[in-house]
This record gives sequence, structure tokens and C-alpha cells, in this order.
Amino acid sequence: MTFIIGGARSGKSAHAETLVTACRGPWTYIATAQAHDDEMRERISLHQSRRGEGWATVDAPLDLAGALAALPDGRPVLIDCLTLWLTNHMLAEHDFEAECRQLADVVSRPRGPWFVVSNEVGQGIVPDNALARRFRDAAGRLNQQVAAVADTVLLMVAGLPLKVKRDDRY
Amino acid sequence: MTFIIGGARSGKSAHAETLVTACRGPWTYIATAQAHDDEMRERISLHQSRRGEGWATVDAPLDLAGALAALPDGRPVLIDCLTLWLTNHMLAEHDFEAECRQLADVVSRPRGPWFVVSNEVGQGIVPDNALARRFRDAAGRLNQQVAAVADTVLLMVAGLPLKVKRDDRY
Amino acid sequence: MTFIIGGARSGKSAHAETLVTACRGPWTYIATAQAHDDEMRERISLHQSRRGEGWATVDAPLDLAGALAALPDGRPVLIDCLTLWLTNHMLAEHDFEAECRQLADVVSRPRGPWFVVSNEVGQGIVPDNALARRFRDAAGRLNQQVAAVADTVLLMVAGLPLKVKRDDRY
Repeated sequence: MTFIIGGARSGKSAHAETLVTACRGPWTYIATAQAHDDEMRERISLHQSRRGEGWATVDAPLDLAGALAALPDGRPVLIDCLTLWLTNHMLAEHDFEAECRQLADVVSRPRGPWFVVSNEVGQGIVPDNALARRFRDAAGRLNQQVAAVADTVLLMVAGLPLKVKRDDRY
Repeated sequence: MTFIIGGARSGKSAHAETLVTACRGPWTYIATAQAHDDEMRERISLHQSRRGEGWATVDAPLDLAGALAALPDGRPVLIDCLTLWLTNHMLAEHDFEAECRQLADVVSRPRGPWFVVSNEVGQGIVPDNALARRFRDAAGRLNQQVAAVADTVLLMVAGLPLKVKRDDRY
Repeated sequence: MTFIIGGARSGKSAHAETLVTACRGPWTYIATAQAHDDEMRERISLHQSRRGEGWATVDAPLDLAGALAALPDGRPVLIDCLTLWLTNHMLAEHDFEAECRQLADVVSRPRGPWFVVSNEVGQGIVPDNALARRFRDAAGRLNQQVAAVADTVLLMVAGLPLKVKRDDRY
């Protein structure tokens, strides 16, 4: 399992797509985004248009574990992205800490080449509002949980991957 | 002296604790946090409960140099963290630039394995308010001053250390 | 062409100056900053006073491509910085996406040792206001475009360079 973390517009999704399509297809794209507004709809359609033939798209704004369980063994998967999935659970007032623990457990036992994308959101000034601080804490903890069980962790900087953790078993 | 920098919830303190406890104890934890509100109190007690036996805790919200001077030679120390200490000096309207220079001077001559934790706060959008911008500038400068005199500098990314500067003397 | 990216007060300009002055002078400093207010004027004069003899300063808040075209071949140049230049174009309501494409094209064919400085602004919480989000997206895309054509990319962390991309041709 490869974990790809980076800031906004750091090229996370594009790099992850390159890594996934280097595996033998078909490929599955698991989208966690929900098109609440026009800005979001535009981002989603931009991402979709960049992916071409050979991709199946699965929407999983909340039940990411279920979407992963439904996949056949060996299927290359791009999960994009954890921070939106976490946002959806927080907005729905679910027990997001339990959800995070369950998800980290599921991705720790990948049944194929799984690529997980997430945002780094903790390197700015402390946010004014308490909800943003809670989100920042939860996202940071989730990122740590997933990075801990990943084989490879990449930090995206201006479209380029910086290796943070490398699987030395191969 | 090892300098550990990273975003919020990037695993700085936990990683620093691992490094400190790899040294022979007893260990000293120098806390710069002040429990102004419940949120802060909760964070402090979370950090305390994670540390176990063998730790002495010293509170030094302002006089970090004094707390370090009072320690015996050779004592492994975790200073957590510089950005809160800087916040305390700025809120108290002290000459924080002089304080920063003095602190950088003190940690440049460590009397044992000293581990210093700080936050990266400059990788977000320029903050709206002038105080946040002043803090961001001051924190960035302080981080540069301490990193310049550190033997080892680690950037924490999702709980994993990325080596930025390595002591090649050993 | 060397691309130097980092957060606020991460030591980008100082490190870039060190790299430029390691080349044979005279050196050209292309400043994109506009002194809108006292805070900005102070930053500009701080940067100027740090640079000494042997530097020519060119102001290019908007026409960066023109300023670069006017330089003689082989001249070491420090372009400081892309994010302010982008801000100027966005505030002027220019077609900034076209400007970014043109600039990336110009710096992809450097006529000497060119050093380009930019800010990482995408690693904080999603900004509240739409303009800040647009800027963050545009800056991230511009950084990717320039990094893609750079020979060397450095991420500044607390004043220290972390190599993200290295030119292996030399």
C-alpha cells in the first residue's frame, strides 16, 4: 500500500494515477468527494477528464471500507482522498475516530496494489475556529495511522515525490 | 542537539519521546504549554498520560533558558515546544527577538542529548491578521536559528521523520 | 535552472542568494514585490540590505518574461518570488493562467544560472474565502509547472535545503 500525502495542488492525484496505471488494469478509482457546490463539481470533473479509458469509478463518500471490501483481489485502486472522506464523516457527526481506526485497519491489509491519497493540512497557522482545529487534529492523526501501516509513503512537493518511507522488503 | 520540526499532529512529540527514551534515563520533559483553556488542558494531559515512569516534568512557559541551566550535565531533555514558548513571550509583549537569540545561543551548547520540538507554521496561505503574520515570521526565524546550530534536523511527515540535516561527525 | 520552494520565513531568499553568489558575478536580482504598505516596504528593504555589492536590482512586478529576455546570456539571476508575481497578476485581473504558462516556458530555457524562488502555500487548512482558494490553486499549479522544467528543486525547511529533484546530467 502506497500513501501519497501533500498540500493542495501539489500533484498528489496525478502522481498517484501514474503509479496506478503502471500496474496492469483495469483500475478502480474510489472517489470520496461529494459535489456540494459548483467549485467542487468543477474539481471532480477536471479529475475525471484527466483519467481516461480503463478506469472504473466508485463513489464512496462515507463507506470506504465497504467499497474496498467489494473489490476483487489484485485490483489496482486509487483512493482519492482521505481528508474529504474524513470531512464527510465529521459533517455527518459520525464517530469519526472509530471510522479512522477501522479504515487504517482495512488499508493495512491491502488485497492488491492500493494507492491512498491524503492532504497535509497542519503546516499553516493555527486556525481561528474550533471546528477547523478539530479537523486538523483528526486529519493529522489519520495520516499518521495510515502512514504507519503503508509500505511506501511519498510527500508531494510541487508535483514531485519525496520518499518519506520506503518498502525495503523488495 | 536534535531539532524536530513538523506540522500540527505530525507526530513530533511522540517521535521525540522515542528518541529521548533511547538515551539512558532519567529524562526531563520541559513543557512550555500554559493551560489557558479546556482544549489546551486536554492536550497537555494527553501528552502527560503518554509519557510514563522515569520522566520529570518541568514547566517553563517563559524562562526556558533558566530551566535548561538548572539541569545537571548529561541529562536527556525533551523541550516541547518552541512555538508555544514564542507565543507566550509575544502575548506577554516581551522583546521576543532578544529571547529567541538567547535561546538559540543556549541550545547551541547542549550539555547532554537535548531534543527540541517546534512547529512549521509557514506553509499555508498568508494569514489575514497582522499578529498571525508577525508570529509566523518570528516562528520561522526562530526555527532557522535553532536548525542552524542543531546537529540533526528532522521534518515530521505523518508520523515519519525525514532527515533534513544529519550530523556527520559520528 | 534551480527552483527553491518553501514556507514563509523558511530561508528561501537567503539560500538562493548563497547559490547565486557562488556563480561568477555580476548578479541580477529580479524583484516581483510591490511596496503597497509599510509592512511590505520593510520586508523589501530588509532583503535589499542583506544583499551587498555586485547586485543589480530589476523590478518586475508583472513583466517577468520581459525582464528575463532583457538580460545578457550567462548572467546569474535570482527571481524573488513567483507567488508575489502571481498575486500581482491576479489583483490586476489579468489572464494569470496564460501568464503562468508563458513564464514556465521562459524559465524552461534558461540562458544562464537562473534561480527561481516560490512559496509553498497549500499545506494549511482550506482557506475560508474563495479568492484565497483560487490563489492557492493557481500557486500550486504554477509551482508544479516550474518544478517540472527545473534541473534542481529544493524544499527549504527551517533554513535548510532538502533536495526534491536533482540534476543527474552533471
